[in-house]
Amino acid sequence: MNLSIEHLRIEKASEHDTGLILSFIKELAEYERLSHAVVATEDLLREALFGERPVAEVLIGYYKDAPVGFALFFHNISTFLGRRGIYLEDLYVKPEARGKGVGRAMLIYLARLAKERNCGRLEWAVLDWNEPAIKFYKNLGAEALDEWTTFRVTGDALERLASK
Amino acid sequence: MNLSIEHLRIEKASEHDTGLILSFIKELAEYERLSHAVVATEDLLREALFGERPVAEVLIGYYKDAPVGFALFFHNISTFLGRRGIYLEDLYVKPEARGKGVGRAMLIYLARLAKERNCGRLEWAVLDWNEPAIKFYKNLGAEALDEWTTFRVTGDALERLASK
Repeated sequence: MNLSIEHLRIEKASEHDTGLILSFIKELAEYERLSHAVVATEDLLREALFGERPVAEVLIGYYKDAPVGFALFFHNISTFLGRRGIYLEDLYVKPEARGKGVGRAMLIYLARLAKERNCGRLEWAVLDWNEPAIKFYKNLGAEALDEWTTFRVTGDALERLASK
Repeated sequence: MNLSIEHLRIEKASEHDTGLILSFIKELAEYERLSHAVVATEDLLREALFGERPVAEVLIGYYKDAPVGFALFFHNISTFLGRRGIYLEDLYVKPEARGKGVGRAMLIYLARLAKERNCGRLEWAVLDWNEPAIKFYKNLGAEALDEWTTFRVTGDALERLASK
């Protein structure tokens, strides 16, 4: 499935886009003030996205044929619905290409893909201080799951839990 | 991988556990005050968990050989780490079997599995009013990602977004 609206085009990424995807991930981390957290390499990403058992899929957004953003997603499951969902891990559009509908087009693409694959939900997480994003998502019909908090065990804490 | 501690045993579920898993899901929904949201059927679950392309895996917790709880999980990805993670969608222990270490044993199992599969993180979401759970998770080394909120598009809103 491809999606084109005037100067916009949304396409599935392929292996030769790995370097581009990594550069977008680094720009996204910078915007989220989390640059220190990026340790991914092109090899790790290639294996995760285009290896034997891909764990996620990627869309590239083009504006006037130049790549300006990406969306990285995978399937989760709702046990209450008994059906798969789509979880959008990363959505990023370069600052100079914002306001042209690229992010919106990627979300529309994912909503169509969710229907095509019989998924019950499209979900993603947003940083609480990112007010422009929150307003944008609510305008597209998304509801905030305010009563849930995500917990994480990682690094040394994960080692310690595994060795209990 | 199996994990046994005294009267406890944690095992991977198989297809013949589908009915049991559904009954646990319904009990969990009741505890979360979300019973109205459960529309999953045994057929839908069997397809999602044990069909051609399983989207999640399940552990069953046994106490003195009786099944008393379950954990349902799938792989997500951290683009910053460039590695897979484990996302725990559901964790449930029957009320009469709580306080015996079943939930703890399932989390330890998952932390070991995360290491075995070279995953960087173990994550899950908790309802904000579930204080006993939050205390329990923090004691096991989990950190709350307080600055993130999950957004969801589902039902009619998903239809509307797909048809934009």
